[in-house]
Amino acid sequence: MTRLRNAVVAQSGGPTPVINNSLRGVVETCRVMPDLFDTVYAGWHGIEGVLKEELLDLSTQRTEEIALLRTTPAAGAIGTCRYKLKAHQQEDFERAVEVLRAHDVGYFFYVGGNDSMDTANKVAQLAHERGLDLVATGVPKTIDNDVGDSEFKLIDHTPGYGSVARYWALNVQNADQENAGACPSDPVLVLQAMGRKIGFIPAAARLADPEREMPLLILMRESGLTLEALADRVNDTLRERRRVIVVVSEGFDVGEIGERKDAFGHTMFSSSQMSVEQIVVNHLNKVGLAARGSARGNVPGTDQRDNMIYASTVDLEEAYQVGRQAVFTAVEDGSGYMATILREPGPIYRVRYDKVPLEAVANSERAFPEAWIAPSRTDVTDDFVRYASPLIGDDWPNVPLLAGLQRFARLQPVFAEQKLPEYVPQAFRR
Amino acid sequence: MTRLRNAVVAQSGGPTPVINNSLRGVVETCRVMPDLFDTVYAGWHGIEGVLKEELLDLSTQRTEEIALLRTTPAAGAIGTCRYKLKAHQQEDFERAVEVLRAHDVGYFFYVGGNDSMDTANKVAQLAHERGLDLVATGVPKTIDNDVGDSEFKLIDHTPGYGSVARYWALNVQNADQENAGACPSDPVLVLQAMGRKIGFIPAAARLADPEREMPLLILMRESGLTLEALADRVNDTLRERRRVIVVVSEGFDVGEIGERKDAFGHTMFSSSQMSVEQIVVNHLNKVGLAARGSARGNVPGTDQRDNMIYASTVDLEEAYQVGRQAVFTAVEDGSGYMATILREPGPIYRVRYDKVPLEAVANSERAFPEAWIAPSRTDVTDDFVRYASPLIGDDWPNVPLLAGLQRFARLQPVFAEQKLPEYVPQAFRR
Repeated sequence: MTRLRNAVVAQSGGPTPVINNSLRGVVETCRVMPDLFDTVYAGWHGIEGVLKEELLDLSTQRTEEIALLRTTPAAGAIGTCRYKLKAHQQEDFERAVEVLRAHDVGYFFYVGGNDSMDTANKVAQLAHERGLDLVATGVPKTIDNDVGDSEFKLIDHTPGYGSVARYWALNVQNADQENAGACPSDPVLVLQAMGRKIGFIPAAARLADPEREMPLLILMRESGLTLEALADRVNDTLRERRRVIVVVSEGFDVGEIGERKDAFGHTMFSSSQMSVEQIVVNHLNKVGLAARGSARGNVPGTDQRDNMIYASTVDLEEAYQVGRQAVFTAVEDGSGYMATILREPGPIYRVRYDKVPLEAVANSERAFPEAWIAPSRTDVTDDFVRYASPLIGDDWPNVPLLAGLQRFARLQPVFAEQKLPEYVPQAFRR
Repeated sequence: MTRLRNAVVAQSGGPTPVINNSLRGVVETCRVMPDLFDTVYAGWHGIEGVLKEELLDLSTQRTEEIALLRTTPAAGAIGTCRYKLKAHQQEDFERAVEVLRAHDVGYFFYVGGNDSMDTANKVAQLAHERGLDLVATGVPKTIDNDVGDSEFKLIDHTPGYGSVARYWALNVQNADQENAGACPSDPVLVLQAMGRKIGFIPAAARLADPEREMPLLILMRESGLTLEALADRVNDTLRERRRVIVVVSEGFDVGEIGERKDAFGHTMFSSSQMSVEQIVVNHLNKVGLAARGSARGNVPGTDQRDNMIYASTVDLEEAYQVGRQAVFTAVEDGSGYMATILREPGPIYRVRYDKVPLEAVANSERAFPEAWIAPSRTDVTDDFVRYASPLIGDDWPNVPLLAGLQRFARLQPVFAEQKLPEYVPQAFRR
């Protein structure tokens, strides 16, 4: 396949601080192969942009702005979406292939998690059936680190996770100074971590303190503790240390107590209307603390996935390389693979970039290894620390500043000319 | 007054990222005047440590650790407290003087806000009445920027404010990339800012975007808008821009809607049990958005005042200089002053360090200038931007990293020998 073709790259799902560095890897690598790649487009807000034929022209962008994608966090550059091409949405699939054909797209790079790998695979298969020669290649991305398998054979860790892990390492260090300083009046500081389904994010709080000097409790979804047990652990720690930092997953099961009933027994606040942090803080203050003062909490929310300042230099580099690898894989091995990061054995952290079948990724599911949860259920083990600590790097990301502000990439809104009739994605129809 | 005396420095109230740099200014400046200053102690957790005779010896600490206070945030190094010496707590005042006398303390440096300046003044007056020659000097500190007067004559801005302003400038830049990228599914991002009583902190969000390109609404306590009006503004902005970032003060008046009644009309959640952000987000999702998707929010909480990563280099420098100035003032002018930062007139940002009477500060109250609130009530004016933008600096704070983690100062727990009987502060008695 040496005919000059166009490429489309699209992002899916929640962003990461380094997602644009994978985008940069794709774009810069395509640029150095002008015999294979003509124009590189971005699906504007992911697959939604493909369906709506909104294709941002990345090839006409200034080299400097593409370079600045390195330190431009989250998905503001080309947009992402939560739109899913579900198996029954056949019209959407046909439309996607039609749009790709209309723009002579030979390469489709999809940056996302397990679901996205499934979508990329299905789009490529349908394209093949419809006689369009399309190479679909996946680029892994997610702060949750839930792509691939539990044995880390398909991928060791996803780009994005190293940066959110660094967020928690450094953030808990700062919070510890706050908690230590304020302890006579505010002895309990509750920090809510992302990761509704899997505990890799709260687990990273341990990286702040591998020697276990801080009074730190980590409550993952997987901990299996109740809100009452959590309160007991908090008070035990207060009796010993006079203060405590609680990192609690947004997926922690707050149970009945979290729900609050009105006079008729109706639930007034589900956890979707009140954050887990708020429920935990209110519960602690209600049952009473084994110390003077009260509990308070922070909900950093999207800051965990959009914050460039905390980005890991290791993660930045790996996100870039995995974007490059996707292009190499597409060119050398054809359709149906995801670029991946595999860890070399041995005590020194080293990775290699490789490929795995999209289908294997799509059919896999990762759980947080049970063996990495400490017997206390409020901590993780040293094996986890050995796994995760190399990912946070040991330097600052050096975000360029201009007049005191971060200088992010500014892409010009140059779109491919639309060639097809307007289309409303299936899920948006009334 | 040339007799060799000891000094006590103590911190009060909520911390800032740069509070320890004022501490460093005091300690390093005392160290270069060994003819005047013998041992410098810290009140362990502020005035509580003075009352309990818990005095941390700062003079025996390693020079390197004192130097590292520059990039050690919040109050973990020597502790702070919310304990207030109220006028009627005469026993506490007498005890404070007794402890200072027992340790031959000739200088008392109190790092805090308006209340602390009042306390420092009263302690010095009582010491004088009791025949103890004590120089009390104030060191201003607060992220709220609410020390001094509304005309900025007593102090232009407090150390700590520049860093929280930078926090909001950079954080909103990152949040804008998140919101722009995620807008099809999450078009509204609500960020809750500190500053229960005064709006300087949320106002600083405007520094992220002085050209007013972002769809940004700033709701200060002073805006005077209702929750309903806020929802209308959000929907107006959604119709124009498809997305919106709302920065709302924790002091924003959510009114009746925020309170929720149970079936008998009893208030079930006061704002102390549910954050303003949560109330705003729930209200927006309840009344409905003028766009697909839903509202979500972040509550960074103490991260705003304990986060070293965002610290402003201008703020760091000023916090240090104001600590030094306090020592110079104490030595040259005697008791009863607060070291201060005054802005030189003219278009180029320059400050000078000076002194103002503690009593003038204690009796003053600062309001956010009404003229700096834009007519829309959801923005601030360019005059505010001109005032605040020099404070955020234009460089990274360069926090030293070791093995990927921030290397904060580690002070040894060396305390002055206790000479007096144990004492329970008045407010802690049953």
